[in-house]
Amino acid sequence: MLWAGLCLVFGLLGGGQAIAEKVKLDPGQWGHEAGKDCVSCHSKASAGLASQWRESAHQSAGVNCMDCHQAERSDADAMEHEGRIIATIVSPKDCGRCHEKEYREQQGSVHAEAFSIIEARLPALAEHVGGSGMSAASCDQCHGSRVKVRGDGTLDPATWPNSGIGRINPDGSKGSCSSCHGRHRFSRAQAREPEACVRCHSGPDSPDKEIFEASKHGMIYAAHRDEMNLNAPEWVAGRDYTAAPTCVTCHMGAAGKLPSTHDVGMRNAWSLNTPVSRRQYLVILEDGARLELPLGSEIPKRGQELVRPDGRPGQVKSVITPERRRQAMSMVCLECHGKSFTEGFMNQFDTVVALFNDKYGTPAKAIMEGLLGAGRLTPTPFDEPIEFTYWELWHDEGARARHGASMMSPNHAWWEGMYLVGRNFYARFLPQARAIAGDRAGELVDAVIAGQAAHQWLIEPNQASAILGLEPAEGD
Amino acid sequence: MLWAGLCLVFGLLGGGQAIAEKVKLDPGQWGHEAGKDCVSCHSKASAGLASQWRESAHQSAGVNCMDCHQAERSDADAMEHEGRIIATIVSPKDCGRCHEKEYREQQGSVHAEAFSIIEARLPALAEHVGGSGMSAASCDQCHGSRVKVRGDGTLDPATWPNSGIGRINPDGSKGSCSSCHGRHRFSRAQAREPEACVRCHSGPDSPDKEIFEASKHGMIYAAHRDEMNLNAPEWVAGRDYTAAPTCVTCHMGAAGKLPSTHDVGMRNAWSLNTPVSRRQYLVILEDGARLELPLGSEIPKRGQELVRPDGRPGQVKSVITPERRRQAMSMVCLECHGKSFTEGFMNQFDTVVALFNDKYGTPAKAIMEGLLGAGRLTPTPFDEPIEFTYWELWHDEGARARHGASMMSPNHAWWEGMYLVGRNFYARFLPQARAIAGDRAGELVDAVIAGQAAHQWLIEPNQASAILGLEPAEGD
Amino acid sequence: MLWAGLCLVFGLLGGGQAIAEKVKLDPGQWGHEAGKDCVSCHSKASAGLASQWRESAHQSAGVNCMDCHQAERSDADAMEHEGRIIATIVSPKDCGRCHEKEYREQQGSVHAEAFSIIEARLPALAEHVGGSGMSAASCDQCHGSRVKVRGDGTLDPATWPNSGIGRINPDGSKGSCSSCHGRHRFSRAQAREPEACVRCHSGPDSPDKEIFEASKHGMIYAAHRDEMNLNAPEWVAGRDYTAAPTCVTCHMGAAGKLPSTHDVGMRNAWSLNTPVSRRQYLVILEDGARLELPLGSEIPKRGQELVRPDGRPGQVKSVITPERRRQAMSMVCLECHGKSFTEGFMNQFDTVVALFNDKYGTPAKAIMEGLLGAGRLTPTPFDEPIEFTYWELWHDEGARARHGASMMSPNHAWWEGMYLVGRNFYARFLPQARAIAGDRAGELVDAVIAGQAAHQWLIEPNQASAILGLEPAEGD
Repeated sequence: MLWAGLCLVFGLLGGGQAIAEKVKLDPGQWGHEAGKDCVSCHSKASAGLASQWRESAHQSAGVNCMDCHQAERSDADAMEHEGRIIATIVSPKDCGRCHEKEYREQQGSVHAEAFSIIEARLPALAEHVGGSGMSAASCDQCHGSRVKVRGDGTLDPATWPNSGIGRINPDGSKGSCSSCHGRHRFSRAQAREPEACVRCHSGPDSPDKEIFEASKHGMIYAAHRDEMNLNAPEWVAGRDYTAAPTCVTCHMGAAGKLPSTHDVGMRNAWSLNTPVSRRQYLVILEDGARLELPLGSEIPKRGQELVRPDGRPGQVKSVITPERRRQAMSMVCLECHGKSFTEGFMNQFDTVVALFNDKYGTPAKAIMEGLLGAGRLTPTPFDEPIEFTYWELWHDEGARARHGASMMSPNHAWWEGMYLVGRNFYARFLPQARAIAGDRAGELVDAVIAGQAAHQWLIEPNQASAILGLEPAEGD
Repeated sequence: MLWAGLCLVFGLLGGGQAIAEKVKLDPGQWGHEAGKDCVSCHSKASAGLASQWRESAHQSAGVNCMDCHQAERSDADAMEHEGRIIATIVSPKDCGRCHEKEYREQQGSVHAEAFSIIEARLPALAEHVGGSGMSAASCDQCHGSRVKVRGDGTLDPATWPNSGIGRINPDGSKGSCSSCHGRHRFSRAQAREPEACVRCHSGPDSPDKEIFEASKHGMIYAAHRDEMNLNAPEWVAGRDYTAAPTCVTCHMGAAGKLPSTHDVGMRNAWSLNTPVSRRQYLVILEDGARLELPLGSEIPKRGQELVRPDGRPGQVKSVITPERRRQAMSMVCLECHGKSFTEGFMNQFDTVVALFNDKYGTPAKAIMEGLLGAGRLTPTPFDEPIEFTYWELWHDEGARARHGASMMSPNHAWWEGMYLVGRNFYARFLPQARAIAGDRAGELVDAVIAGQAAHQWLIEPNQASAILGLEPAEGD
Repeated sequence: MLWAGLCLVFGLLGGGQAIAEKVKLDPGQWGHEAGKDCVSCHSKASAGLASQWRESAHQSAGVNCMDCHQAERSDADAMEHEGRIIATIVSPKDCGRCHEKEYREQQGSVHAEAFSIIEARLPALAEHVGGSGMSAASCDQCHGSRVKVRGDGTLDPATWPNSGIGRINPDGSKGSCSSCHGRHRFSRAQAREPEACVRCHSGPDSPDKEIFEASKHGMIYAAHRDEMNLNAPEWVAGRDYTAAPTCVTCHMGAAGKLPSTHDVGMRNAWSLNTPVSRRQYLVILEDGARLELPLGSEIPKRGQELVRPDGRPGQVKSVITPERRRQAMSMVCLECHGKSFTEGFMNQFDTVVALFNDKYGTPAKAIMEGLLGAGRLTPTPFDEPIEFTYWELWHDEGARARHGASMMSPNHAWWEGMYLVGRNFYARFLPQARAIAGDRAGELVDAVIAGQAAHQWLIEPNQASAILGLEPAEGD
């Protein structure tokens, strides 16, 4: 039964292909004549850049600077440089000329949408709480920006340098391979290290680096990094290495018969960075495009027409359920853990997500919507202090609780996570909400949690405990 | 005089044994016939697990799966698996069949009590501020849980997986060797790395990982990890390695003539995670059991009867004073530092602890007890915001100040520690306490600190300083 | 044009010397007879210490314990030890007997002033918010302390051990080489690792370690540390290594034709840890001393007389402008990045600094000065909660935003930085300031920001956005 399910997962998730695709193009297609001149000059100017390329698989295979940087005069970002027409940006589309499978998977992934999904929301946070020009050095560096080209083909310094994972390139493709595979070496080993993800997956809203380091997985990885076989051509967990997993292992890597993928979110059954977590459905369209189903949407049927984020229509070919995505992730776990261990762990994780949703996420959202609906809050976000409180409840503290539970850092699940969610809700959010609601506090705030068993402890004042380390003063 | 003391420390702390005990059992006692079948099947299912074992000292010595996992039908957690009676959990008691010295030391350590000491306190925090089921993915993963067995011998997923250091196992033993020695490799080298402790010793209440990394010790370790000789059979600081210490070096490791121990808290002279730090006495009972003397207790005499945490009586054989414990820890320091350096450092540490106690810990506790005694606070913890404020003062900020000073991270001693303690006390705790005390604020709050010289600066408003970077406006 | 500038930078910044100076003294000047006795005894007592020396370049060159620790009876900290006159502290002046260039550069650096610049400010923070004796284990360990010698030549434990970078030594020299080059090995490789800086450059006010780790540079360094050639005699970026930079690379290291320097702040064009950032001018005096121009000072002319921090006068020989300092830093970037990439990055950094200054730093400072001038705040810092709020706005949150942008951690530029600055300013600082100003809030608080376009969004309440994840309740 499990295996029948897993085989189905295969078919849907990986096209039956267990290993990373080898570049199959004819070497006659690269080795641009002018490349030698580039290298010659750049061995003096920006010598490090040339040196990094010299250590790369590209160099070994005869792929040179011009093979990647050459441009057509008609390209939006074409410019002349030392007598050649080149473009500064080498986009995923350019890389996809050789790395076709990786390009296809990456373009359909949630990584590629990293800028699209926040673009409309940026002004209310980056501009108001930040300020003009702030996003270039911050948001844009992870999410990507819409790269602007100036009249002479050079890139607008307000949008460049940028190696954000959802960058909108001048050629229309999304993302940047060098986000994870640092240029100009583009090493597979480097991208398999946990540090490859740290730049964006660290900090208050997604401390995945910190969580990994504080997990058993991180503890074992630190000790046995030299046995990780990180530069293996294929890198199949359980076969090519067994010492420990890295981020890539679970989210993208091959494991046993599970194929590798550059669609990084495919194995995630839950949305974790939302006010309330939802189980996620992945929709595959007839033309191969993939689409995370927006929260709260109806689950579509085969043949149904959908509208993509960019407005184009698409016809549903198949839908991958959260259960299937969970099965795919579990296949990685099962390479080193037994079935009951894996299921027990997933149960612990799901319990934390459900607890956050039911006890804190959903009521807090309802209270905020009530205050907004009653005109006690303005529609403009972040102009009232409670909006920071609410934002951090789900976007930071609640995300940490859920990420912590998903990757086994007890500290993040609790002290950096749910403990702060509870403190926030009881000691900050509720008092602020009551003050804002004023005479309608009973109706707009307290009524929302009144029926919930999880909050009943609040109205039982005599549950003494030794936890605070206090002894009642004698004689009182 | 010092050496006389140290020899006495020896006798009491290590039984005169300077090196980790070698396994002395007859190899005829292991090498279970059925082990081959386990390995054969698990080289396919959960292949990583078998592969980790293949890299282990167990494999080299001929110890196989069944040697550790075999069970008697009468065992609480016995279950049938592929025709054999096994148990999922290999408890410290099981490991202790061969590793007798380590088992004995670990069972008597504060690690083994990690769940017992919080069990009664959990509901008021994990259930109220967290919620039902929260502890499985958080508290329990470090402290351990009381593992429950279902009717069929399988483990209740609400309590499993769990590798908490104070886990209550179905066989009654406490803890989990795999907390530090990751299964199924059980490497000594891995457990000697600082990362072995990170899972539990990181985060707001005990950022020992962060502190180590920010200390001179961590700085040197990072540079010279390859000279640490981490897999040495015996691993004596000053002899087998001198590049840097890790957590294990100071808290458990052999150093010069000081023997190694799995009684991890033995060298700690202070309690640091309490509302007010106390100097710790370790009591050794006639049957060899060790007992941290509860805070505020009378120091017992030889022959006196005591009650253990689990209710059983015990007769005192000897008492190790905080001074002796400090001497043991100092023996590690002295392998690389001079005596005056070591004493100077310990003096700096003690000063911070005393400062926290006298200026903040003791008065804050007295104020909270006053408010509680006067009925201005309910006995239920965490239903009033000030209870979070007070909790973080000692449990988080105060703990960081004290841990930071104990392991030489200036940042944690100050910015993450005492600075926040002071900010909390003056800018949050006192105002909240005064508001709660209302008309009795003078008596319940201000009277408590009125006499203390350390707080006199508060009532001297004209001590100008350039520190805030302000210049008074002209003309005012 | 650029090159003309760079050559000038050369002349001023490095004396035209592209490589670290080799020790040129006559080996006959070291190899003290008594050294053998030291080693013989310390191979037993503090064995690790002797062992670290044995691994050092000093040992290879024949430099022994007495060569560094020998003292004259007349030295302030001379003491007798086993029949020899020695001093515990080996000061930069002592090291400078052989390492003359490094000594000269370090003595003129901002590192050497780390204690001097905070000494007068310490009481208002370390004593009031901390307490008596607090600084020894915290502030002093990074900034240094004024080391006190007792009558018998031993060091006062209130000021020792200490390896703060601006330590005032008994011989009057400043700092401690062992801050970065851990004793007794004094390894150049170790000091080139990013971990060499972590002890002081981590935590809320200067999380440079965390920023580096979360940058592309840190990501690549983690993967390729073994190619860093860290022990190279000269260590020129772009020639001896190209894998990644460390802290030393950019702030002190040789790169292409840019010489290395122990004047660590020389390449910094901005002050970043101030209430408002200023472009920094470095003044070189006739006697070779270097002097950061105090904030807000007039830029001096050649020949002008200045007063040094210690009160002695000095005559200006030349002034290095912020632009020149930026050019020097950019020379490092250019070893691996193109010119437009480098300029684009610097533009992003400058934008964040200017935004902090104009939108938050300057108005917050003006508001605080207004409240102080109006007598609504006492001159004593930290006796009112808003003083902590203001302090953290620029000293912590604002510093993180600026440091994050300077070294490319998007998380620190935004979530740990400017996001918190904005939250602080709008949701904490302004409400506190208004409450303190009371009836004069309009004049003392709101008038300050009333004219600023960057704050206009606050008064437009209907800018709905999906960012908070809220939907207005129906029917309201």
